[in-house]
Amino acid sequence: MSAAREGSPRAVARLVSLVEDAHPALREVMAALAPHTGGAHVVGLTGAPGVGKSTTTTALVTSYRERGQRVGVLAVDPTSPLSGGALLGDRVRMSEHAGDPDVFIRSMASRGHLGGLSWAAPQAVRVLDAAGCDVVLLETVGVGQSEVEVAGTADTTVVLLAPGMGDGIQAAKAGILEVADVLVVNKADRDGTDRTVRELRGAVAMGERAAGAWRTPVVRTVATSGHGVDELLEAVDRHREHLGERGLRERRLLRAAREVEGLVLETLRARVGGVAGDERLDALAVDVVDGRTDPWAAADALVAELG
Amino acid sequence: MSAAREGSPRAVARLVSLVEDAHPALREVMAALAPHTGGAHVVGLTGAPGVGKSTTTTALVTSYRERGQRVGVLAVDPTSPLSGGALLGDRVRMSEHAGDPDVFIRSMASRGHLGGLSWAAPQAVRVLDAAGCDVVLLETVGVGQSEVEVAGTADTTVVLLAPGMGDGIQAAKAGILEVADVLVVNKADRDGTDRTVRELRGAVAMGERAAGAWRTPVVRTVATSGHGVDELLEAVDRHREHLGERGLRERRLLRAAREVEGLVLETLRARVGGVAGDERLDALAVDVVDGRTDPWAAADALVAELG
Repeated sequence: MSAAREGSPRAVARLVSLVEDAHPALREVMAALAPHTGGAHVVGLTGAPGVGKSTTTTALVTSYRERGQRVGVLAVDPTSPLSGGALLGDRVRMSEHAGDPDVFIRSMASRGHLGGLSWAAPQAVRVLDAAGCDVVLLETVGVGQSEVEVAGTADTTVVLLAPGMGDGIQAAKAGILEVADVLVVNKADRDGTDRTVRELRGAVAMGERAAGAWRTPVVRTVATSGHGVDELLEAVDRHREHLGERGLRERRLLRAAREVEGLVLETLRARVGGVAGDERLDALAVDVVDGRTDPWAAADALVAELG
Repeated sequence: MSAAREGSPRAVARLVSLVEDAHPALREVMAALAPHTGGAHVVGLTGAPGVGKSTTTTALVTSYRERGQRVGVLAVDPTSPLSGGALLGDRVRMSEHAGDPDVFIRSMASRGHLGGLSWAAPQAVRVLDAAGCDVVLLETVGVGQSEVEVAGTADTTVVLLAPGMGDGIQAAKAGILEVADVLVVNKADRDGTDRTVRELRGAVAMGERAAGAWRTPVVRTVATSGHGVDELLEAVDRHREHLGERGLRERRLLRAAREVEGLVLETLRARVGGVAGDERLDALAVDVVDGRTDPWAAADALVAELG
């Protein structure tokens, strides 16, 4: 654990694996790390598949490294049987920053049951935070509510779009604007960029209310060439400054509350026993299928027995 | 409730709304419906955005109606801030089958917290089942684990792909083959169809084990023109026959166990109080952010207090 705090990549990797495996030692490790967390700026990056999240993350890592900052990257893969394909991108990144002792890159599958992502990702962020990272980039595929929730509880959330994929009106409708602290139109050398940027800016302007409120900037990037990545970094920095200590604390309190709630549910779920193993649950399922009871009544019976 | 069981579309719509709103009356309604469920063949349809799920569902409804069967359609929208767009498709469908008293079409948002989908969708299926539907089509966008789980617990699960989007090897890797009872290559008038079908069939053949086991068929469709939809329907029917009463019961027991487990967690979650409201949770979040405790210890404290 002390090796991880001194930044040993192997030690950090081992601790992230503990999180992924929900290892019994995790509780002790987290207790030991607790006093050493809070130093990292947690930046969430999200967007639909194909907008260039991996490439943008890699380019950001390069920029942070040029400043001499230690960077952690946590790429969360929702492991959908119907998407897949994050792994190749990960290997490409690995090779680019391999051997740099101040870059930790880790991809995590949010496999297993529902809610797996929501409790595991913040804990992996804690590990990278306690390992002395100045910045932790939390990259998630923005296709489900859960991924957006994770990104949305970062200190700063960057939402990536590509030209034509999300025009301003669509974005406004879909609630992107509420989640994004920084909007990026990547692949900005493609047709339709101007229109997408204009519409996003229009939507941001329409949504503005309070004086002094953060005005979500719209940044153009071509991550493959590095174009615009410095501007993106500046926008992220400005958002961090805008938050101040008070704003930062507010976000982190919300994140901590969600994290604790997630672990409470995880603990209670373990008590219930799970779909596969629990005899009482299986017996109640028989009653439900045979129409002798309904799922709510069965759930009430189980909850009463947990007492 | 009796109006819903007699098939009044308005009454059915009201009951599905109760489910969506998690209305207090839901428990009573579900208890009353329990003895009348189990008659419908629940068919899950899933696939990545853009493969043509809505069009295929509409075409299937037409075919079922030609047979004189009563059909319920439940389209679950994961309401990602980063996708959106299911609504238009829904309106198109509405217009095509509007006025047919034996077709219930309802789209449901899986909005709200994690796991919202997993408990609400099966209950909406129960409503349509108890309303006398012969078939309930449960359509989900296959982008997250939760959607796949829902589709995977249907009696018969249809996974849609489009040419080039998922070749056989990718599909095998991504775990599609384990979920799918029927594979559909939609948009089969496009280039690359033969290759995709061939690779999927190859992957299915490789994965086969036990004698007499179901061999997942690969069906070509052009849902926009109706081409292949009858073959798809036949494949779905054959799967239902293959399951038999015993196989069907096995799947339904698993589904019921998951449903009950989900409701138990929902009940326990309500006890915890939720992120926004609970004072005790907020106080623990302060301790976590200040590094005085870690999330696991905080969760343990809360669980102990739930006693």
